[in-house]
Amino acid sequence: MPESKAPIITLTTDFGSRDHYVGSMKGAILAVNRDARIVDISHEIAPHRPLEGGFVLACAYAAFPPRTVHILVVDPGVGGPRRPLLVVTESHYFLAPDNGCLAFVFEREPVRTVYEITAAHYFRQEVSGTFHGRDVFAPVAGWLTRGTGVESFGSPVEDYAVGEVPRPKLTREGQVRLTVLHVDRFGNVITNLQKRTLDDLLAKNPGKTIRMEIGGQALSGIVTHYAEGPDGAPFALIGSAGHLEIALKEASAAETLGLTPGQQILMSLV
Amino acid sequence: MPESKAPIITLTTDFGSRDHYVGSMKGAILAVNRDARIVDISHEIAPHRPLEGGFVLACAYAAFPPRTVHILVVDPGVGGPRRPLLVVTESHYFLAPDNGCLAFVFEREPVRTVYEITAAHYFRQEVSGTFHGRDVFAPVAGWLTRGTGVESFGSPVEDYAVGEVPRPKLTREGQVRLTVLHVDRFGNVITNLQKRTLDDLLAKNPGKTIRMEIGGQALSGIVTHYAEGPDGAPFALIGSAGHLEIALKEASAAETLGLTPGQQILMSLV
Amino acid sequence: MPESKAPIITLTTDFGSRDHYVGSMKGAILAVNRDARIVDISHEIAPHRPLEGGFVLACAYAAFPPRTVHILVVDPGVGGPRRPLLVVTESHYFLAPDNGCLAFVFEREPVRTVYEITAAHYFRQEVSGTFHGRDVFAPVAGWLTRGTGVESFGSPVEDYAVGEVPRPKLTREGQVRLTVLHVDRFGNVITNLQKRTLDDLLAKNPGKTIRMEIGGQALSGIVTHYAEGPDGAPFALIGSAGHLEIALKEASAAETLGLTPGQQILMSLV
Repeated sequence: MPESKAPIITLTTDFGSRDHYVGSMKGAILAVNRDARIVDISHEIAPHRPLEGGFVLACAYAAFPPRTVHILVVDPGVGGPRRPLLVVTESHYFLAPDNGCLAFVFEREPVRTVYEITAAHYFRQEVSGTFHGRDVFAPVAGWLTRGTGVESFGSPVEDYAVGEVPRPKLTREGQVRLTVLHVDRFGNVITNLQKRTLDDLLAKNPGKTIRMEIGGQALSGIVTHYAEGPDGAPFALIGSAGHLEIALKEASAAETLGLTPGQQILMSLV
Repeated sequence: MPESKAPIITLTTDFGSRDHYVGSMKGAILAVNRDARIVDISHEIAPHRPLEGGFVLACAYAAFPPRTVHILVVDPGVGGPRRPLLVVTESHYFLAPDNGCLAFVFEREPVRTVYEITAAHYFRQEVSGTFHGRDVFAPVAGWLTRGTGVESFGSPVEDYAVGEVPRPKLTREGQVRLTVLHVDRFGNVITNLQKRTLDDLLAKNPGKTIRMEIGGQALSGIVTHYAEGPDGAPFALIGSAGHLEIALKEASAAETLGLTPGQQILMSLV
Repeated sequence: MPESKAPIITLTTDFGSRDHYVGSMKGAILAVNRDARIVDISHEIAPHRPLEGGFVLACAYAAFPPRTVHILVVDPGVGGPRRPLLVVTESHYFLAPDNGCLAFVFEREPVRTVYEITAAHYFRQEVSGTFHGRDVFAPVAGWLTRGTGVESFGSPVEDYAVGEVPRPKLTREGQVRLTVLHVDRFGNVITNLQKRTLDDLLAKNPGKTIRMEIGGQALSGIVTHYAEGPDGAPFALIGSAGHLEIALKEASAAETLGLTPGQQILMSLV
């Protein structure tokens, strides 16, 4: 079977699924390139939480074939319209507003060049002041997957917003302060501690394991998969995105422990 | 790159995403035409609100390439099964029950011919009394995109339900009475005042702008995009579908002002 | 038009639509086979209810063309990781954990061979302990639709979990005890009584019809479609999946009658 060249475009937005927004974006892509395969990552990003949208995309994009085009539209939109960016990395393309929403992608994926998209002849004919997803990003993704060169869309910029990824911090008492990044559908609490950082920590502290105290409940050690966790008590594991997660069997760890994105957790090595 | 001819079929329904309904429709389309690209507009139309389903589709369809086939299934189903219609317009095809749900499409898109779909040999073998989406519309869309001529599906009809689009009305006091058509995911309140009508009104009243009073809050003028709106107070703008919207920065205007679809708002020129 | 051979892969999971899980699975499929057409059946299966996931898939799969690959991932994950299965039936392929979730499919579709998937060189390079959907089922579906033979993925097994489908039971008093399988978006209550069983019952009891008493409300007879039902009172009909349903016009029968999946209903022939 000859290798297919069907171009792939993914969408991550805070548009939800009730309105015409996502459908209109897809129409605008297909109006430029009918052969594009459009894949939804999520449209249920909490409105106006760009960092979380970027985190969800950062967990998914690497599963796609090289040269996939990823559109991320989550924009609080306060303070004037953001510049639309085309980010070319080692293996993928990203289209997003210049508001730092790609922070978690920048952390994982070496950036080659970031372009400010200005070439209006690639936009929809009538650009609405309120819907850059449909009028700018969608057609640009269409042209990009039809072979238009990246330099055609605008000039390279250096002063784009990199965004800020919360990192685990060592406290004076020798503990590690983690931040909750995301709570998934099952109530699993995903922290900002990545597997490689944890592995480093454990290598430097042979014979030790992790311990956390959250809402009066203590939790220690790391299981390898959900089934291995204890019944009725929270436990920690490395989730599918390579981050330390706190889970509870057949229940929501987030609800039980009262954890929401942005909250902090203290971890010790014992 | 040669121009692709991949046919596109969009779906707008009140089927939600929990059940097998949408998947079954897609299966029935692909069973006839595996090459069809199926795009979801929305499956979260409020159950049994055909007019709102038509409004969401009317906001999205024009973004799609000409000759796209749009299926709209929102049917309260009271009073017996509706005739299934194939509506051929200037540039698109629409498949929908004969219950007026296409009202907002009819308003935007010049109709060429409306056919009642009766040619049962194009239906699924066993037609369920309860699921015309899968058993009638899906296979007809499949055959239509495989090149079956529109006349093959039935005879033209003139007595189809056009539906009723609520229009802005001038009151005796010289005010304009608007109707809320839709509240989107962000709580933006979309009214029935279209940009071209508003432009006409403002052209006839040079130097004036609009003013509304809703739930004790006054609102005047029109901003060009969300970021330009004031902080903490509702404002008006022309949304991405070309209608006057009432919005609130990072909050739900609908909830704050107590507005729901069907409600009326008085607007003055001052 | 030449017959298309585009392969189709459907997805039914309890992953919801907020997280990266479904997007990551699709990426992993496309990384193996870019030509696969991926169709969502549902990702809103109640977490950890494998039987209900299988029921939704069982209602949808037969609408798809022969040789479609259906992935079902709903796994409570208690008691250790389940073996991943490839089920080859008369006309379709199913990929699912070995936890009985395919019970309703097994009931409808003659099984040819069930393979335990063990050939790790078809998996994603780094298999996460927590995400077999992306790391095992997705790439296997990709290879299967690229033509890899079913025997390549592992060996046939006989001791797989068949799962238990609740069947209508005759009581000593001559009544039939039905079980609620699913409540759909509209509040329709779908029971485990299939059309062919009901037809048999009615054929053996000429001149009789069905009668149920639920929450103090009596209901008798069967209507052919929703529109034919009475106003304001529950009624029974054969739904689109071929099961007896209890419905209420423009209201939720489940809520009104207090019915949820797993509950039982007594039916008489009168």
